[in-house]
Amino acid sequence: MWGGRFAEGPSSVMREINASIPFDKRMWRQDIAGSKAHVAMLGKQGIVAADDAATIAAGLDAVAADYERDGVPEDLALEDIHMLTEARLAERIGPVAGRLHTARSRNDQVATDFRLWVRDATDQVLAALDMLQGALLARAEEHADSVMPGFTHLQSAQPVTLGHHLMAYFEMIARDVSRFSDNRARGNRCPLGSAALAGTGFDLDREATARALEFDGPTRNSLDAVSDRDFALDYLMAAAQCSLHLSRLAEEFVIWASQPFGFVKLSDQWSTGSSIMPQKRNPDAAELVRGHSGRIVGCLTALMITMKGLPLAYSKDMQDDKPPVFECHDLLALSIAAMTGMVESASFRTDRMRGLAESGFATATDLADWLVREGGIPFREAHHITGRAVAAAESKGVRLDQLELAELTAIDPRIDERVFGVLSVDASVNSRTSFGGTSPVRVREAIAAARAARGE
Amino acid sequence: MWGGRFAEGPSSVMREINASIPFDKRMWRQDIAGSKAHVAMLGKQGIVAADDAATIAAGLDAVAADYERDGVPEDLALEDIHMLTEARLAERIGPVAGRLHTARSRNDQVATDFRLWVRDATDQVLAALDMLQGALLARAEEHADSVMPGFTHLQSAQPVTLGHHLMAYFEMIARDVSRFSDNRARGNRCPLGSAALAGTGFDLDREATARALEFDGPTRNSLDAVSDRDFALDYLMAAAQCSLHLSRLAEEFVIWASQPFGFVKLSDQWSTGSSIMPQKRNPDAAELVRGHSGRIVGCLTALMITMKGLPLAYSKDMQDDKPPVFECHDLLALSIAAMTGMVESASFRTDRMRGLAESGFATATDLADWLVREGGIPFREAHHITGRAVAAAESKGVRLDQLELAELTAIDPRIDERVFGVLSVDASVNSRTSFGGTSPVRVREAIAAARAARGE
Amino acid sequence: MWGGRFAEGPSSVMREINASIPFDKRMWRQDIAGSKAHVAMLGKQGIVAADDAATIAAGLDAVAADYERDGVPEDLALEDIHMLTEARLAERIGPVAGRLHTARSRNDQVATDFRLWVRDATDQVLAALDMLQGALLARAEEHADSVMPGFTHLQSAQPVTLGHHLMAYFEMIARDVSRFSDNRARGNRCPLGSAALAGTGFDLDREATARALEFDGPTRNSLDAVSDRDFALDYLMAAAQCSLHLSRLAEEFVIWASQPFGFVKLSDQWSTGSSIMPQKRNPDAAELVRGHSGRIVGCLTALMITMKGLPLAYSKDMQDDKPPVFECHDLLALSIAAMTGMVESASFRTDRMRGLAESGFATATDLADWLVREGGIPFREAHHITGRAVAAAESKGVRLDQLELAELTAIDPRIDERVFGVLSVDASVNSRTSFGGTSPVRVREAIAAARAARGE
Amino acid sequence: MWGGRFAEGPSSVMREINASIPFDKRMWRQDIAGSKAHVAMLGKQGIVAADDAATIAAGLDAVAADYERDGVPEDLALEDIHMLTEARLAERIGPVAGRLHTARSRNDQVATDFRLWVRDATDQVLAALDMLQGALLARAEEHADSVMPGFTHLQSAQPVTLGHHLMAYFEMIARDVSRFSDNRARGNRCPLGSAALAGTGFDLDREATARALEFDGPTRNSLDAVSDRDFALDYLMAAAQCSLHLSRLAEEFVIWASQPFGFVKLSDQWSTGSSIMPQKRNPDAAELVRGHSGRIVGCLTALMITMKGLPLAYSKDMQDDKPPVFECHDLLALSIAAMTGMVESASFRTDRMRGLAESGFATATDLADWLVREGGIPFREAHHITGRAVAAAESKGVRLDQLELAELTAIDPRIDERVFGVLSVDASVNSRTSFGGTSPVRVREAIAAARAARGE
Repeated sequence: MWGGRFAEGPSSVMREINASIPFDKRMWRQDIAGSKAHVAMLGKQGIVAADDAATIAAGLDAVAADYERDGVPEDLALEDIHMLTEARLAERIGPVAGRLHTARSRNDQVATDFRLWVRDATDQVLAALDMLQGALLARAEEHADSVMPGFTHLQSAQPVTLGHHLMAYFEMIARDVSRFSDNRARGNRCPLGSAALAGTGFDLDREATARALEFDGPTRNSLDAVSDRDFALDYLMAAAQCSLHLSRLAEEFVIWASQPFGFVKLSDQWSTGSSIMPQKRNPDAAELVRGHSGRIVGCLTALMITMKGLPLAYSKDMQDDKPPVFECHDLLALSIAAMTGMVESASFRTDRMRGLAESGFATATDLADWLVREGGIPFREAHHITGRAVAAAESKGVRLDQLELAELTAIDPRIDERVFGVLSVDASVNSRTSFGGTSPVRVREAIAAARAARGE
Repeated sequence: MWGGRFAEGPSSVMREINASIPFDKRMWRQDIAGSKAHVAMLGKQGIVAADDAATIAAGLDAVAADYERDGVPEDLALEDIHMLTEARLAERIGPVAGRLHTARSRNDQVATDFRLWVRDATDQVLAALDMLQGALLARAEEHADSVMPGFTHLQSAQPVTLGHHLMAYFEMIARDVSRFSDNRARGNRCPLGSAALAGTGFDLDREATARALEFDGPTRNSLDAVSDRDFALDYLMAAAQCSLHLSRLAEEFVIWASQPFGFVKLSDQWSTGSSIMPQKRNPDAAELVRGHSGRIVGCLTALMITMKGLPLAYSKDMQDDKPPVFECHDLLALSIAAMTGMVESASFRTDRMRGLAESGFATATDLADWLVREGGIPFREAHHITGRAVAAAESKGVRLDQLELAELTAIDPRIDERVFGVLSVDASVNSRTSFGGTSPVRVREAIAAARAARGE
Repeated sequence: MWGGRFAEGPSSVMREINASIPFDKRMWRQDIAGSKAHVAMLGKQGIVAADDAATIAAGLDAVAADYERDGVPEDLALEDIHMLTEARLAERIGPVAGRLHTARSRNDQVATDFRLWVRDATDQVLAALDMLQGALLARAEEHADSVMPGFTHLQSAQPVTLGHHLMAYFEMIARDVSRFSDNRARGNRCPLGSAALAGTGFDLDREATARALEFDGPTRNSLDAVSDRDFALDYLMAAAQCSLHLSRLAEEFVIWASQPFGFVKLSDQWSTGSSIMPQKRNPDAAELVRGHSGRIVGCLTALMITMKGLPLAYSKDMQDDKPPVFECHDLLALSIAAMTGMVESASFRTDRMRGLAESGFATATDLADWLVREGGIPFREAHHITGRAVAAAESKGVRLDQLELAELTAIDPRIDERVFGVLSVDASVNSRTSFGGTSPVRVREAIAAARAARGE
Repeated sequence: MWGGRFAEGPSSVMREINASIPFDKRMWRQDIAGSKAHVAMLGKQGIVAADDAATIAAGLDAVAADYERDGVPEDLALEDIHMLTEARLAERIGPVAGRLHTARSRNDQVATDFRLWVRDATDQVLAALDMLQGALLARAEEHADSVMPGFTHLQSAQPVTLGHHLMAYFEMIARDVSRFSDNRARGNRCPLGSAALAGTGFDLDREATARALEFDGPTRNSLDAVSDRDFALDYLMAAAQCSLHLSRLAEEFVIWASQPFGFVKLSDQWSTGSSIMPQKRNPDAAELVRGHSGRIVGCLTALMITMKGLPLAYSKDMQDDKPPVFECHDLLALSIAAMTGMVESASFRTDRMRGLAESGFATATDLADWLVREGGIPFREAHHITGRAVAAAESKGVRLDQLELAELTAIDPRIDERVFGVLSVDASVNSRTSFGGTSPVRVREAIAAARAARGE
């Protein structure tokens, strides 16, 4: 393979550390597609005779059919998917196979294959995120009026609606979609034709291969094209953010599924039992989604470190680009699918949510705001008055709206009976009509806007 | 500050771990700007009386002038820049200061301040990257014809031009610009009015505050708005990629500045000496740029981990969002500036570059390609013939173009004298005219296109 | 400083990126100590005249006194604490100051200073961990019998005691202590005398300086000595593990402090209130401890990346070793202190803990084990029988020990009335007497063993 | 498996995300060993009848033989290696298989299996590091006198010997050995008997199982035992440091193998060629070792993040502990083996090393030190004089020892002809006899001491 200037073959350890076929065989579809686009262009440009080009294209189809049927064999001696496919091609069509690699190098070939793979992965993630958003919208609509405690520091803070809470995740996923889409656009350029690193003297039509592979155009600098892995890092970074979002919802499901909260009962399909404690209904899927965020961030870290300080153009370190991306994609795809399933099938126990919302003085801010609005009291002073009211309710063991008016006026004479209009959780939630607020009216508007943007 | 329900004050350790003023004071300009926009809107909406709003605005200006003149005091008891500014305001204008915080919470306030800060940082980085691109373009133009060895695996592979090599970095930085710009657009929405987490019942005009602060509009979900730190992660991720790009050029400068390479002499301004070895001219700035990529990736890692698994809405963990972003920005800004200075002032020793390009059989591929093109030989066979020619030259101790024709035809009779037209490094470089290739013609086109896109 | 071979001084950016004085001034005590040990040895070996050595030592004391009184000035032109101190020394004692740096380089000097600093930091952490362990032991003893639900997947699994739970953290901290101690031993060797990288021809007594600085001996290879930062990574790694342990307890405090759990009331000293929701009692300190684990892991990541792929011996990248270690230490020290304070002062609400332990079928395993032990039933079959019993109790809305005997025998006739002896949470807890189990007897033994090992 | 309380089975995504058998089957040997130790103890304690215990033990041997012969089947429905083995056992020996899991839970079972696996991995790494140290010693001995330039900032600084340079790596590996050994000791405690989380009421002999599995004893707290993954993090941390050391030597091999340096020719066994550039001899193995450090650090990062903030005791997130450890181990084992092979077989081109050492004014420090020692000149002044001498030699284009005495005395009259005794690289190297210095005498002593410590 290396031109016969090596007296000795590689040691077995060398063969093992050097071979990428155990993982890069996963790109065989992209490798075949890239080769077909390349040879078609070579034929059209007259660099390879038209019938040779046709023979090669047919041979590639046959090799692809073999892979499809029998899987891709892991032959360490052939090192990678590129050499394997060329060897298989030569077995089928003879020496003419040797013309395929004209005006190409493994450096631009692997860069092209990997970009195609990452683009496909991106499209799969975008489709999966669309389904997750659909699930969030459906459940948010169902629960646009369901009151639950809004938490800060996991302390009951102000009442919100479950629909509003779920729509917060819709927003996070919308940013993920935006991020994957931006990345897809930025990375959608074709390295083919950059050859080893310097371009080539053959009269290529790089626009043609780019078009054939649905790229937006060719890359602009051959050195950059073979040494760039930004597109892979972009994918990993978007995946990391997405996975962190999912980890937050996963954490909430774990907490909500605990007995003391009891906010959610996960469906049988998304729970597991215990081998020793038969009464358990464990939120394993949520925990795995949360755990996977660690591994996904680990994948990102790995590739960032590997790329650090590499001189141009290609260094073999860059062969370590694929395992983290492949692993990340598998973990992310499973995480999104699992989260979609959990969201779709979860039974939200809105009675428990409401009960907790009512018990935690969660309308204290409403009292403070009422004092500002109706009493003209500066906010900071209103805040102190409210603190005393909460203390009174707490020591009496009642909710804020269960205090007597006299008890309230004793704290501050400017309070009157109209205050009871703001102290219930329903009143509180309904009042928060600022744009983006938790009022059911606003939540329904947000859902409608989202549906409209989705063309539903 | 917390409404008098606490019998005991915080312990000194608590005070220290809890206070963010030592670092968030850096956002004082953003905090003042956000408060001014908020109170102007409150005044216009009639939520605060117009003269109170005017008093508060004037007071904020006065506080800002104090900070500008005297610096921002670190009073741990006041915890953060928000409480500090409100306290200073109250000292100046009395209890009316308490009206500023109407329909606002520290949660939406800090989210707004931090977004403004990150946006400013992004704009600074974009300006700095523009200067670096300018420097790269200028040096690339100067060296569009300067032949150097193109490396793979740090082995001399094929000749390229220094201009082409520098333009590879131009491309990387162009992606960085694209990434920072995408992030700026995605994150440019205003959280103000989301209040603590649920929105508010006051009749706010969120569009107005968003406009006043040059946001593209308000955020769409109040829970998300106060719990979202994607914009900070976006910044860190773009910074990490940029820093990795710089680390590659830095590595090259370190290697190129070594005696055996001798490709570059860094200017006095960008070198250091040694306290014990007076002959040293150390590429410290390049090494620091390379080293800083470690810390920048560390900053990104830190915030990803901190955000993992946080339930909605605000948790105090999120106070740890700022130190990594601030540190990252300082390191990145210095790194870009230092790299710009090094690029601008470096003396490239093109004689040494050419010398090495000529000595390493770097035109072997040109011979192989000639055999394919002129001899119609399949690439793989041409490759083997070339290997034998290189072996012959190596054993004779000459360059490929110094072999006799007879020696070449002895290897393969299809070789004729025209082959000498492709074996020099200049011929090689000039031949690589595929789009994105290293031919000076293409490099000049790339530079011209880049200048046109910059409006130069 | 660099011998006058530089025509131009550094640019201002270069000066800023290059100077380490803003952070390494923190090592001034170590720098003075190292210099005093060095000059004392030089004097004793006759390399520097005895009176010169005495003059230098006295001068160093005077400089140290200045630093102690006035702080260490940040003079970027002097670059680092080493040059600053030498300059200050020269101001005080004149040209003889120039003899201090004989047979030394900044490379071995900074390696020595930093090792001393890390060793001091390690000792501080060990002392702090000892206090945390003391607090855990005290509270564990107090609650050796307090029944709480033991969780897996945050689902109530089997009853345990709070004392046992706290002792789990004691064990984690014991491993942290072991790790910091191992590191201290491994890293406690003195680089002084390695000079720039090659050692020196002066007749040094490296054992003497090592002893004077309380190292176990000199390092064994001069190249390694100046390029090694393992000791810093060791510190960061031990800190990361410790911080992850603390993050787990912090997470538990956050969850336990939530209204639905209500397992703990944090003291006023370790809680904060809210600027807008006066009823809040937020576990900010716990959240910050949890958040800090992100930054601490970020510090570790930073230095690992910075050290990756550095050729020997010293590269300037290594100047980026100190900021992550300093930041990590500050965060860790605060985290341990805060956690110690929270553990010492938390009010555990054992009634709520017991209530939840009793409500979640947590003794199901005890029933299954009883069936195995008394009925001779294979475990897997016993597990299925138990599952049916739990289902019966759940559908009736009672605890397992509130089922009638007839209901149990209907499920399996091998059950008899003795079973009620194992179905209460107290019976369950008391029964788990295997070594390391939650039985109060075992917990008390573990506490006693720990106290004995501490010499209490 | 979960006691029949689930109406519906898991969804296919749930099955996939939940199953660990695809990776944990790798622990089958440890799982069988743990089960055999457990059932032997159950039999001896009379918890399981002696003949049942014997039947189970024989059955486990038979299952193990099946695995050995046919591989371990990946049955997602059986979820993990523990359930698979128990199912296989039941197929072979019938319902008595159900007695194996008495007094055990998957929680303590997996913790035990994984500790055994990590301990085995540690022992493999220790053996591999011993071989690498052997290779370093052999080559260091061979080159104890071979002069090469010692670098700082990749600038030629002072001459050292290649033997000394290689011994620097011996020292790094010695610390790795120390770290792995410390970890092995710290983690060598047996969780078996901790059951699900609380211990058990069965009368176990945990000392016996611990002994049977060659642990130093049982773990001390059952909650900690099932929730602790410190031992895995310890392994990953030691691996990360080791891998960073290897990355430094790998970087040096890459740089040394470049044409301009030409310090090393890697053997055919450890090089690769190029598909397009037949003259290439690429240091792929070194690059892969360097690249692998990124992935290994990524594995560490992954598990740290996954463990962050997990409440006690077991959470399913912890299932993500194994893939990073398995991946790390494979990468590290390959890296050490590859580096050992490269060190053993590399041809060091000592002529090129010496040539460069002589050309870079690398004995400037020797001149400065001579001025101090013989002239009694303060070091800082000597440094300036030396700077002028270097400038003179540089402008004349000669080495320092090629200057005329008159040229030197013109710079400083205190210089006399004795100075030529220190200006050659051999004189320089031989003079550095301080402990740990590069003098061949010292290097040979260090090698001898290392051999003695190894018992050679």
